[in-house]
Amino acid sequence: MLTKSSSLMRLVGELKKLPGVGERTALRLAFHLLKSPRNMTALSDVLCEVRDRVHPCSKCFAITESDPCSICSGSRESGILCVVENSQDLMALERSNAYRGLYHVLEGVISPLSGIGPADLRVTELVERVAEGSVQEIVIATNFTVEGEATALYLTKVLKPTGVKISRLAHGIPLGSDIEFVDAATVQWALQGRNEL
Amino acid sequence: MLTKSSSLMRLVGELKKLPGVGERTALRLAFHLLKSPRNMTALSDVLCEVRDRVHPCSKCFAITESDPCSICSGSRESGILCVVENSQDLMALERSNAYRGLYHVLEGVISPLSGIGPADLRVTELVERVAEGSVQEIVIATNFTVEGEATALYLTKVLKPTGVKISRLAHGIPLGSDIEFVDAATVQWALQGRNEL
Repeated sequence: MLTKSSSLMRLVGELKKLPGVGERTALRLAFHLLKSPRNMTALSDVLCEVRDRVHPCSKCFAITESDPCSICSGSRESGILCVVENSQDLMALERSNAYRGLYHVLEGVISPLSGIGPADLRVTELVERVAEGSVQEIVIATNFTVEGEATALYLTKVLKPTGVKISRLAHGIPLGSDIEFVDAATVQWALQGRNEL
Repeated sequence: MLTKSSSLMRLVGELKKLPGVGERTALRLAFHLLKSPRNMTALSDVLCEVRDRVHPCSKCFAITESDPCSICSGSRESGILCVVENSQDLMALERSNAYRGLYHVLEGVISPLSGIGPADLRVTELVERVAEGSVQEIVIATNFTVEGEATALYLTKVLKPTGVKISRLAHGIPLGSDIEFVDAATVQWALQGRNEL
Protein backbone atom coordinates (compact mmCIF):
# COMPACT_ATOMS: atom_id res chain seq x y z
CA MET A 1 0.00 0.00 0.00
CA LEU A 2 1.11 3.61 0.37
CA THR A 3 3.62 4.82 2.93
CA LYS A 4 3.57 8.22 4.66
CA SER A 5 6.32 9.43 2.34
CA SER A 6 4.50 8.41 -0.85
CA SER A 7 3.52 11.16 -3.27
CA LEU A 8 -0.20 10.59 -2.62
CA MET A 9 0.27 11.11 1.11
CA ARG A 10 2.31 14.22 0.41
CA LEU A 11 -0.54 15.44 -1.82
CA VAL A 12 -2.91 14.81 1.10
CA GLY A 13 -0.51 16.81 3.30
CA GLU A 14 -0.53 19.74 0.86
CA LEU A 15 -4.33 19.67 0.50
CA LYS A 16 -4.67 19.64 4.31
CA LYS A 17 -3.03 23.08 4.39
CA LEU A 18 -6.10 24.54 2.65
CA PRO A 19 -8.71 26.21 4.89
CA GLY A 20 -11.56 23.91 5.92
CA VAL A 21 -9.82 20.79 4.59
CA GLY A 22 -9.06 18.08 7.15
CA GLU A 23 -7.47 14.65 6.79
CA ARG A 24 -10.63 12.96 5.47
CA THR A 25 -11.54 15.68 2.98
CA ALA A 26 -7.93 15.82 1.77
CA LEU A 27 -7.97 12.05 1.18
CA ARG A 28 -11.28 12.32 -0.69
CA LEU A 29 -9.93 15.15 -2.86
CA ALA A 30 -6.69 13.25 -3.54
CA PHE A 31 -8.53 10.09 -4.61
CA HIS A 32 -10.83 12.20 -6.77
CA LEU A 33 -7.85 13.84 -8.48
CA LEU A 34 -6.19 10.44 -8.89
CA LYS A 35 -9.07 9.37 -11.15
CA SER A 36 -8.27 12.11 -13.66
CA PRO A 37 -4.62 12.68 -14.65
CA ARG A 38 -5.81 15.44 -16.98
CA ASN A 39 -7.34 17.41 -14.09
CA MET A 40 -4.13 16.93 -12.09
CA THR A 41 -2.09 18.38 -14.94
CA ALA A 42 -4.49 21.29 -15.42
CA LEU A 43 -4.54 22.13 -11.70
CA SER A 44 -0.75 21.85 -11.46
CA ASP A 45 -0.23 24.08 -14.48
CA VAL A 46 -2.69 26.75 -13.42
CA LEU A 47 -1.14 26.87 -9.92
CA CYS A 48 2.24 27.69 -11.46
CA GLU A 49 0.62 30.27 -13.71
CA VAL A 50 -1.12 32.00 -10.80
CA ARG A 51 2.12 31.97 -8.79
CA ASP A 52 4.06 33.54 -11.68
CA ARG A 53 1.50 35.98 -13.06
CA VAL A 54 -0.75 37.30 -10.31
CA HIS A 55 0.61 40.20 -8.23
CA PRO A 56 -0.74 43.33 -6.54
CA CYS A 57 -1.43 46.37 -8.74
CA SER A 58 1.22 49.04 -8.11
CA LYS A 59 -1.47 51.74 -7.78
CA CYS A 60 -4.39 50.19 -5.86
CA PHE A 61 -2.82 46.91 -4.60
CA ALA A 62 -5.69 44.80 -5.92
CA ILE A 63 -4.46 41.48 -7.28
CA THR A 64 -4.04 41.60 -11.03
CA GLU A 65 -2.14 40.12 -13.96
CA SER A 66 -1.53 43.45 -15.69
CA ASP A 67 0.04 46.53 -14.10
CA PRO A 68 -1.70 48.87 -13.46
CA CYS A 69 -4.85 46.76 -13.09
CA SER A 70 -7.83 47.06 -15.45
CA ILE A 71 -9.71 49.26 -12.97
CA CYS A 72 -6.83 51.72 -12.45
CA SER A 73 -6.13 51.88 -16.19
CA GLY A 74 -9.81 51.93 -17.22
CA SER A 75 -12.22 54.84 -17.58
CA ARG A 76 -13.42 55.02 -13.99
CA GLU A 77 -14.27 58.13 -11.95
CA SER A 78 -10.94 59.15 -10.50
CA GLY A 79 -12.45 61.54 -7.93
CA ILE A 80 -13.77 58.78 -5.69
CA LEU A 81 -11.71 56.14 -3.90
CA CYS A 82 -13.12 53.10 -2.12
CA VAL A 83 -10.88 51.67 0.61
CA VAL A 84 -11.27 47.89 1.09
CA GLU A 85 -9.50 45.33 3.28
CA ASN A 86 -8.64 42.90 0.49
CA SER A 87 -9.24 41.93 -3.14
CA GLN A 88 -12.12 39.59 -2.22
CA ASP A 89 -14.06 42.57 -0.80
CA LEU A 90 -13.22 44.54 -3.94
CA MET A 91 -14.68 41.75 -6.06
CA ALA A 92 -17.88 41.74 -3.96
CA LEU A 93 -18.25 45.50 -4.51
CA GLU A 94 -17.61 45.06 -8.25
CA ARG A 95 -20.31 42.36 -8.42
CA SER A 96 -22.83 44.91 -7.08
CA ASN A 97 -22.25 47.03 -10.23
CA ALA A 98 -23.04 50.08 -8.11
CA TYR A 99 -19.61 51.65 -7.89
CA ARG A 100 -17.79 53.41 -10.73
CA GLY A 101 -14.80 54.89 -8.89
CA LEU A 102 -11.34 53.60 -8.05
CA TYR A 103 -10.21 51.35 -5.21
CA HIS A 104 -7.45 51.14 -2.66
CA VAL A 105 -6.72 47.74 -1.12
CA LEU A 106 -5.28 47.93 2.42
CA GLU A 107 -4.08 44.29 2.31
CA GLY A 108 -5.33 43.73 5.85
CA VAL A 109 -6.90 45.42 8.80
CA ILE A 110 -5.59 46.93 12.06
CA SER A 111 -5.53 44.12 14.60
CA PRO A 112 -3.38 44.72 17.70
CA LEU A 113 -4.07 41.15 18.93
CA SER A 114 -2.43 39.73 15.78
CA GLY A 115 0.28 42.38 15.94
CA ILE A 116 -0.92 44.16 12.79
CA GLY A 117 -0.63 47.94 12.99
CA PRO A 118 -1.16 50.71 10.39
CA ALA A 119 2.46 50.33 9.24
CA ASP A 120 1.68 46.79 8.00
CA LEU A 121 -1.13 48.09 5.77
CA ARG A 122 -1.09 50.23 2.63
CA VAL A 123 -1.97 53.38 4.60
CA THR A 124 1.09 55.44 3.59
CA GLU A 125 0.30 54.69 -0.06
CA LEU A 126 -3.33 55.75 0.51
CA VAL A 127 -2.29 59.05 2.06
CA GLU A 128 0.10 59.63 -0.87
CA ARG A 129 -2.68 58.97 -3.39
CA VAL A 130 -4.98 61.43 -1.60
CA ALA A 131 -2.17 64.01 -1.42
CA GLU A 132 -1.87 63.90 -5.22
CA GLY A 133 -5.09 65.94 -5.19
CA SER A 134 -7.44 64.28 -7.67
CA VAL A 135 -9.46 62.43 -4.98
CA GLN A 136 -12.56 64.24 -3.73
CA GLU A 137 -14.24 61.49 -1.72
CA ILE A 138 -13.05 58.40 0.14
CA VAL A 139 -15.57 55.61 0.80
CA ILE A 140 -14.30 53.46 3.66
CA ALA A 141 -15.53 49.90 3.00
CA THR A 142 -13.73 47.93 5.69
CA ASN A 143 -15.83 45.18 7.28
CA PHE A 144 -18.18 45.85 10.18
CA THR A 145 -16.03 43.91 12.64
CA VAL A 146 -14.11 45.31 15.62
CA GLU A 147 -10.92 45.41 13.51
CA GLY A 148 -12.70 46.87 10.47
CA GLU A 149 -14.31 49.61 12.58
CA ALA A 150 -11.00 50.40 14.27
CA THR A 151 -9.33 50.68 10.87
CA ALA A 152 -12.12 52.96 9.60
CA LEU A 153 -11.70 55.17 12.68
CA TYR A 154 -7.93 55.30 12.21
CA LEU A 155 -8.22 56.15 8.50
CA THR A 156 -10.74 58.92 9.28
CA LYS A 157 -8.27 60.43 11.77
CA VAL A 158 -5.38 60.26 9.32
CA LEU A 159 -7.31 61.54 6.28
CA LYS A 160 -9.45 64.25 7.94
CA PRO A 161 -6.62 66.87 7.79
CA THR A 162 -6.47 66.52 3.98
CA GLY A 163 -9.97 68.04 3.83
CA VAL A 164 -11.26 65.33 1.51
CA LYS A 165 -14.86 64.06 2.03
CA ILE A 166 -14.89 60.75 3.92
CA SER A 167 -17.87 58.37 3.94
CA ARG A 168 -18.57 54.87 5.20
CA LEU A 169 -20.80 52.13 3.73
CA ALA A 170 -24.27 52.21 5.30
CA HIS A 171 -25.15 49.86 8.16
CA GLY A 172 -28.70 48.50 8.21
CA ILE A 173 -31.12 45.68 7.56
CA PRO A 174 -29.85 43.49 4.68
CA LEU A 175 -32.10 43.01 1.65
CA GLY A 176 -34.65 40.23 1.89
CA SER A 177 -34.25 39.69 5.62
CA ASP A 178 -36.99 39.64 8.22
CA ILE A 179 -36.58 42.39 10.85
CA GLU A 180 -37.79 39.82 13.41
CA PHE A 181 -34.63 37.76 12.89
CA VAL A 182 -32.06 40.55 12.50
CA ASP A 183 -29.71 41.00 15.48
CA ALA A 184 -30.36 43.88 17.91
CA ALA A 185 -27.16 45.78 17.05
CA THR A 186 -28.05 45.87 13.35
CA VAL A 187 -31.60 47.08 14.14
CA GLN A 188 -30.03 49.80 16.30
CA TRP A 189 -27.79 50.91 13.39
CA ALA A 190 -30.77 50.81 11.03
CA LEU A 191 -32.77 53.08 13.35
CA GLN A 192 -29.92 55.54 13.86
CA GLY A 193 -29.25 55.71 10.15
CA ARG A 194 -32.93 55.97 9.08
CA ASN A 195 -33.60 57.97 5.92
CA GLU A 196 -36.37 60.52 5.35
CA LEU A 197 -38.75 59.58 2.52
CA MET B 1 -9.35 43.61 -11.65
CA LEU B 2 -9.38 40.02 -12.86
CA THR B 3 -11.16 38.83 -15.97
CA LYS B 4 -12.80 35.43 -16.46
CA SER B 5 -9.80 34.28 -18.51
CA SER B 6 -7.25 35.27 -15.87
CA SER B 7 -5.15 32.53 -14.34
CA LEU B 8 -6.77 33.02 -10.93
CA MET B 9 -10.24 32.48 -12.40
CA ARG B 10 -8.97 29.39 -14.21
CA LEU B 11 -7.57 28.15 -10.88
CA VAL B 12 -11.03 28.71 -9.37
CA GLY B 13 -12.47 26.72 -12.30
CA GLU B 14 -10.11 23.80 -11.66
CA LEU B 15 -10.77 23.83 -7.91
CA LYS B 16 -14.53 23.81 -8.59
CA LYS B 17 -14.13 20.39 -10.24
CA LEU B 18 -13.25 18.91 -6.83
CA PRO B 19 -16.07 17.18 -4.93
CA GLY B 20 -17.85 19.42 -2.44
CA VAL B 21 -16.17 22.57 -3.74
CA GLY B 22 -18.47 25.28 -5.11
CA GLU B 23 -17.75 28.74 -6.51
CA ARG B 24 -17.34 30.39 -3.09
CA THR B 25 -15.16 27.68 -1.58
CA ALA B 26 -13.02 27.62 -4.73
CA LEU B 27 -12.50 31.39 -4.48
CA ARG B 28 -11.59 31.08 -0.81
CA LEU B 29 -9.09 28.30 -1.57
CA ALA B 30 -7.61 30.25 -4.48
CA PHE B 31 -7.10 33.39 -2.37
CA HIS B 32 -5.62 31.28 0.39
CA LEU B 33 -3.14 29.70 -2.04
CA LEU B 34 -2.33 33.13 -3.48
CA LYS B 35 -0.96 34.18 -0.09
CA SER B 36 1.73 31.49 -0.23
CA PRO B 37 3.66 30.99 -3.49
CA ARG B 38 5.63 28.23 -1.75
CA ASN B 39 2.46 26.22 -1.08
CA MET B 40 1.38 26.71 -4.70
CA THR B 41 4.69 25.34 -5.93
CA ALA B 42 4.55 22.40 -3.50
CA LEU B 43 0.97 21.52 -4.47
CA SER B 44 1.75 21.85 -8.17
CA ASP B 45 4.85 19.65 -7.90
CA VAL B 46 3.19 16.95 -5.83
CA LEU B 47 0.24 16.82 -8.27
CA CYS B 48 2.64 16.04 -11.12
CA GLU B 49 4.42 13.47 -8.98
CA VAL B 50 1.17 11.68 -8.10
CA ARG B 51 0.12 11.72 -11.76
CA ASP B 52 3.43 10.21 -12.87
CA ARG B 53 4.13 7.76 -10.05
CA VAL B 54 0.90 6.37 -8.60
CA HIS B 55 -0.65 3.44 -10.49
CA PRO B 56 -2.58 0.26 -9.66
CA CYS B 57 -0.56 -2.75 -8.41
CA SER B 58 -0.39 -5.42 -11.13
CA LYS B 59 -1.37 -8.13 -8.63
CA CYS B 60 -4.04 -6.66 -6.33
CA PHE B 61 -4.92 -3.39 -8.17
CA ALA B 62 -4.46 -1.26 -5.06
CA ILE B 63 -2.89 2.10 -5.86
CA THR B 64 0.83 2.06 -5.27
CA GLU B 65 4.13 3.61 -6.29
CA SER B 66 6.04 0.32 -6.44
CA ASP B 67 5.01 -2.78 -8.39
CA PRO B 68 3.98 -5.16 -6.89
CA CYS B 69 2.73 -3.07 -3.94
CA SER B 70 4.20 -3.33 -0.44
CA ILE B 71 1.36 -5.61 0.72
CA CYS B 72 1.70 -8.06 -2.20
CA SER B 73 5.51 -8.13 -1.88
CA GLY B 74 5.50 -8.17 1.95
CA SER B 75 5.30 -11.09 4.36
CA ARG B 76 1.51 -11.35 4.57
CA GLU B 77 -0.60 -14.52 4.86
CA SER B 78 -1.08 -15.54 1.24
CA GLY B 79 -3.91 -18.00 2.01
CA ILE B 80 -6.50 -15.30 2.69
CA LEU B 81 -7.72 -12.71 0.21
CA CYS B 82 -9.89 -9.71 1.09
CA VAL B 83 -11.96 -8.32 -1.79
CA VAL B 84 -12.63 -4.56 -1.55
CA GLU B 85 -14.31 -2.02 -3.82
CA ASN B 86 -11.46 0.47 -3.89
CA SER B 87 -8.14 1.51 -2.37
CA GLN B 88 -9.86 3.80 0.17
CA ASP B 89 -11.67 0.79 1.67
CA LEU B 90 -8.37 -1.11 1.68
CA MET B 91 -6.80 1.74 3.66
CA ALA B 92 -9.67 1.65 6.19
CA LEU B 93 -9.15 -2.10 6.69
CA GLU B 94 -5.39 -1.57 7.08
CA ARG B 95 -6.03 1.11 9.71
CA SER B 96 -7.91 -1.48 11.80
CA ASN B 97 -4.67 -3.51 12.08
CA ALA B 98 -6.85 -6.62 12.28
CA TYR B 99 -6.11 -8.18 8.90
CA ARG B 100 -2.84 -9.84 7.91
CA GLY B 101 -3.78 -11.34 4.53
CA LEU B 102 -3.69 -10.05 0.97
CA TYR B 103 -6.18 -7.86 -0.88
CA HIS B 104 -7.91 -7.69 -4.23
CA VAL B 105 -9.29 -4.33 -5.34
CA LEU B 106 -12.30 -4.58 -7.67
CA GLU B 107 -11.96 -0.94 -8.80
CA GLY B 108 -15.72 -0.46 -8.53
CA VAL B 109 -18.95 -2.23 -7.82
CA ILE B 110 -21.68 -3.80 -9.96
CA SER B 111 -24.20 -1.04 -10.68
CA PRO B 112 -26.60 -1.68 -13.59
CA LEU B 113 -28.06 1.83 -13.23
CA SER B 114 -24.63 3.35 -13.97
CA GLY B 115 -23.97 0.72 -16.65
CA ILE B 116 -21.22 -1.01 -14.65
CA GLY B 117 -21.24 -4.79 -14.99
CA PRO B 118 -18.82 -7.49 -13.77
CA ALA B 119 -16.75 -7.08 -16.96
CA ASP B 120 -15.85 -3.52 -15.88
CA LEU B 121 -14.42 -4.79 -12.58
CA ARG B 122 -11.32 -6.86 -11.78
CA VAL B 123 -13.39 -10.06 -11.44
CA THR B 124 -11.51 -12.08 -14.12
CA GLU B 125 -8.24 -11.25 -12.39
CA LEU B 126 -9.74 -12.34 -9.04
CA VAL B 127 -10.87 -15.69 -10.47
CA GLU B 128 -7.40 -16.18 -11.98
CA ARG B 129 -5.72 -15.46 -8.62
CA VAL B 130 -8.00 -17.98 -6.89
CA ALA B 131 -7.36 -20.56 -9.64
CA GLU B 132 -3.62 -20.37 -8.91
CA GLY B 133 -4.44 -22.45 -5.82
CA SER B 134 -2.75 -20.72 -2.87
CA VAL B 135 -5.92 -18.95 -1.67
CA GLN B 136 -7.92 -20.82 0.99
CA GLU B 137 -10.38 -18.11 2.07
CA ILE B 138 -11.92 -15.06 0.43
CA VAL B 139 -13.29 -12.30 2.67
CA ILE B 140 -15.76 -10.20 0.69
CA ALA B 141 -15.54 -6.65 2.05
CA THR B 142 -17.69 -4.71 -0.42
CA ASN B 143 -19.86 -2.02 1.20
CA PHE B 144 -23.28 -2.80 2.68
CA THR B 145 -25.11 -0.89 -0.04
CA VAL B 146 -27.42 -2.34 -2.68
CA GLU B 147 -24.54 -2.36 -5.20
CA GLY B 148 -22.06 -3.77 -2.69
CA GLU B 149 -24.45 -6.56 -1.69
CA ALA B 150 -25.17 -7.38 -5.34
CA THR B 151 -21.44 -7.56 -6.04
CA ALA B 152 -20.91 -9.84 -3.01
CA LEU B 153 -23.70 -12.10 -4.23
CA TYR B 154 -22.25 -12.21 -7.75
CA LEU B 155 -18.73 -12.98 -6.48
CA THR B 156 -20.08 -15.78 -4.25
CA LYS B 157 -21.79 -17.31 -7.30
CA VAL B 158 -18.66 -17.07 -9.43
CA LEU B 159 -16.22 -18.29 -6.76
CA LYS B 160 -18.32 -21.06 -5.16
CA PRO B 161 -17.36 -23.67 -7.82
CA THR B 162 -13.65 -23.22 -6.95
CA GLY B 163 -14.40 -24.79 -3.53
CA VAL B 164 -12.59 -21.99 -1.68
CA LYS B 165 -14.06 -20.78 1.65
CA ILE B 166 -16.00 -17.52 1.18
CA SER B 167 -16.85 -15.16 4.05
CA ARG B 168 -18.33 -11.70 4.40
CA LEU B 169 -17.59 -8.92 6.92
CA ALA B 170 -20.04 -9.09 9.85
CA HIS B 171 -23.09 -6.83 9.91
CA GLY B 172 -24.15 -5.49 13.30
CA ILE B 173 -24.26 -2.66 15.80
CA PRO B 174 -21.19 -0.39 15.37
CA LEU B 175 -18.92 0.13 18.37
CA GLY B 176 -19.92 2.90 20.78
CA SER B 177 -23.40 3.36 19.34
CA ASP B 178 -26.66 3.32 21.26
CA ILE B 179 -29.01 0.50 20.16
CA GLU B 180 -31.86 2.99 20.60
CA PHE B 181 -30.57 5.10 17.70
CA VAL B 182 -29.40 2.34 15.35
CA ASP B 183 -31.62 1.82 12.29
CA ALA B 184 -34.04 -1.13 12.25
CA ALA B 185 -32.30 -3.01 9.42
CA THR B 186 -28.96 -3.01 11.28
CA VAL B 187 -30.66 -4.27 14.48
CA GLN B 188 -32.26 -7.03 12.39
CA TRP B 189 -28.82 -8.03 11.03
CA ALA B 190 -27.33 -7.91 14.54
CA LEU B 191 -30.05 -10.24 15.85
CA GLN B 192 -29.70 -12.68 12.97
CA GLY B 193 -25.94 -12.77 13.37
CA ARG B 194 -25.93 -13.03 17.19
CA ASN B 195 -23.02 -14.94 18.72
CA GLU B 196 -23.19 -17.46 21.54
CA LEU B 197 -21.15 -16.50 24.61
